[in-house]
Amino acid sequence: MEKKKIQEKMMEAVRQVRETNPMAGSLTNYVTVNFVANAQLAVGGSAAMVYLPDEGEAIGLAGGATYINVGTLLPIHEESLPYTAKVLHEAGKPWVLDPVAVGIGDLRTKILKEMKPYKPSVIRGNASEIIALSKMWELESGNWKENHGRGVDSTAAVSEAESAAIALAKWTGGAVAVSGKEDLVTDGERIAISCGGSAFMEKVTGCGCSLGGVVAVYAAVTDPFTAALTATSIYNLAGSRAEKKAAGPGSFQMHFLDELYLASPEEVAENPWKLEMAAE
Amino acid sequence: MEKKKIQEKMMEAVRQVRETNPMAGSLTNYVTVNFVANAQLAVGGSAAMVYLPDEGEAIGLAGGATYINVGTLLPIHEESLPYTAKVLHEAGKPWVLDPVAVGIGDLRTKILKEMKPYKPSVIRGNASEIIALSKMWELESGNWKENHGRGVDSTAAVSEAESAAIALAKWTGGAVAVSGKEDLVTDGERIAISCGGSAFMEKVTGCGCSLGGVVAVYAAVTDPFTAALTATSIYNLAGSRAEKKAAGPGSFQMHFLDELYLASPEEVAENPWKLEMAAE
Amino acid sequence: MEKKKIQEKMMEAVRQVRETNPMAGSLTNYVTVNFVANAQLAVGGSAAMVYLPDEGEAIGLAGGATYINVGTLLPIHEESLPYTAKVLHEAGKPWVLDPVAVGIGDLRTKILKEMKPYKPSVIRGNASEIIALSKMWELESGNWKENHGRGVDSTAAVSEAESAAIALAKWTGGAVAVSGKEDLVTDGERIAISCGGSAFMEKVTGCGCSLGGVVAVYAAVTDPFTAALTATSIYNLAGSRAEKKAAGPGSFQMHFLDELYLASPEEVAENPWKLEMAAE
Repeated sequence: MEKKKIQEKMMEAVRQVRETNPMAGSLTNYVTVNFVANAQLAVGGSAAMVYLPDEGEAIGLAGGATYINVGTLLPIHEESLPYTAKVLHEAGKPWVLDPVAVGIGDLRTKILKEMKPYKPSVIRGNASEIIALSKMWELESGNWKENHGRGVDSTAAVSEAESAAIALAKWTGGAVAVSGKEDLVTDGERIAISCGGSAFMEKVTGCGCSLGGVVAVYAAVTDPFTAALTATSIYNLAGSRAEKKAAGPGSFQMHFLDELYLASPEEVAENPWKLEMAAE
Repeated sequence: MEKKKIQEKMMEAVRQVRETNPMAGSLTNYVTVNFVANAQLAVGGSAAMVYLPDEGEAIGLAGGATYINVGTLLPIHEESLPYTAKVLHEAGKPWVLDPVAVGIGDLRTKILKEMKPYKPSVIRGNASEIIALSKMWELESGNWKENHGRGVDSTAAVSEAESAAIALAKWTGGAVAVSGKEDLVTDGERIAISCGGSAFMEKVTGCGCSLGGVVAVYAAVTDPFTAALTATSIYNLAGSRAEKKAAGPGSFQMHFLDELYLASPEEVAENPWKLEMAAE
Repeated sequence: MEKKKIQEKMMEAVRQVRETNPMAGSLTNYVTVNFVANAQLAVGGSAAMVYLPDEGEAIGLAGGATYINVGTLLPIHEESLPYTAKVLHEAGKPWVLDPVAVGIGDLRTKILKEMKPYKPSVIRGNASEIIALSKMWELESGNWKENHGRGVDSTAAVSEAESAAIALAKWTGGAVAVSGKEDLVTDGERIAISCGGSAFMEKVTGCGCSLGGVVAVYAAVTDPFTAALTATSIYNLAGSRAEKKAAGPGSFQMHFLDELYLASPEEVAENPWKLEMAAE
């Protein structure tokens, strides 16, 4: 059974990360960089955050996979982000793109357009971001400027982003993860819908970014689809468990990091998710 | 009764933020940016942090109000901060200025001087900062260079900053909030003194900055004076409640975010504060 | 007895920091800057973080000691970091260097090489970093490019870094602290081995950086060796206490900050450590 096979790969990924402690470097925003690193460490990975082009290259080539998030841009990112993506693509190294707030600002647009040929192994975003990126990269028709959500928040539902996610996955040959109430992960053919999580995840900044960082950790040891699904699944598991212990968003975040650390491979693989095949 | 009317507006502000989830963008420092965002989310707002001029403009115009904090400057801030303030002023959008560590460094001085004509809707700072800004903007006489406190800490008491706060509020036509053991909020005519809080608030970095961010959230739905007082009041309430549960500053911060999330409109309005009228 | 005398100085340092609240400014990385500030506040110090050259100078000269960490570099650091180090050295002000990820990127190398003549009062790093810096500064022979560990992680054991630590301490005339399972602190003659801590300290980003920030707080009131040992000791004490209360890395960090705040001078001085003399 296809689902059973995927679950075995998920368990193997969780186990292997805990055992081998793979390094996943990040070029990510300033708001949530600490949470990204702590989440990567909690699942068993190793983190290293950089901003300069030659450091992106060095960390990217030294690590098992790299996380690139366009959340809070500074002028140096004009050079660092596309350059690092190019280096990773040419070296055949997996990398994860988080197109945060696609549509806001000229530099963000320029950087994201430049990254298209470097085909990220996994793209993670909310529904508005995935829809906008698919249009910006001309994989779907429509005006991406009308689709960029509200600041960093999505104004679209996950289900609305399905065709955009499939189009992006077919372009990259990797996987796409759409975060929302239920999460969608696809490699363009298979679609996994993962359940769980918590409403508190929208009350703590960086649940999306840190998920992207954790995808990169798993992408260091497994294929893009399994990496994206394993990370999504451990997030939904940890989120629903943390919610039961939390009085508010402060205690939620603390318990959430604990639960990322405590989750067993079996629990991650068995956290509710269903498998579908994309329509032709 | 005037106080009763204000309390009704405070309750309405707390309620409306929870219901409408207004976006308040920020251009703020790197040290506490995560806490600012999490506090804004905890009270029910939405956060978006940017650094580039065109992104400040985009987020500023898209949001209900904007928070500008000069805490940790990089060269790009020379352009971003005054430009965003100008855009907001011209668009008639409320914005909150946090003149952190006014007096340290040439760029900080240049930026703060340039912002004077853009009249922030609310200025939030500690007593030393409010006194120094009022002198720098030549609303009171005296040498602001002698008044800038010690690093980011105040060396003056809140009561010493009363006339400076009133002068600033009269200049901007908005409100000023002075943080300290007791907090003072004024619109130049009314003076509210808000009580509560916790000594732990000085043991956790960013209690001041995140208060500024929360003022911006409320400023998206109400007038500057009510916004500043509501934010100050929910901070004092959450601070005193969190202190009762805390063993030290680590657990204090966690409980504090929880209490921001849990506070009811009535509790915020009724947290002890008194109303005075400014002397002519 | 030598150890007894050192313990008295450690207790005095803990006490004096709590009483006088010394300001220790930082030029530090973006990932852990919040944790650095909160740890400095928890032990009783005052924090102020800056990035620009003239602000580094102002905060450096205003503070009792300064913490410089090369963790996440931006172009402005090329000027800010060596300049601030030079100013501090010329003013005879204590400063702490954290050579994070020495060996990655050209700018990091340039900055670290330039700092050699400004003799940091304390150098704090993991074993790989201490070994690499000692070779980069040509105090020991060997190729530092082969020694830079893996990203921000050490690939060497603390004991392997003993001769490098001694060489660095002899060069600076200050102290060196090597962090690891057991921690080594030396002034080139005395070697203190400090025990305790927790495996969770590698699962929370910034335990090393914030230790450096806390060393700076103590360096504002005592000599470099005592400062480095006191900070190391309070970290090992708080780490082992926090571990007993923690379910995972999220709760560990919260309890850790609480325990930094709660530790008494006697407990810090008596947390297990042993004293040795360096071989000639």
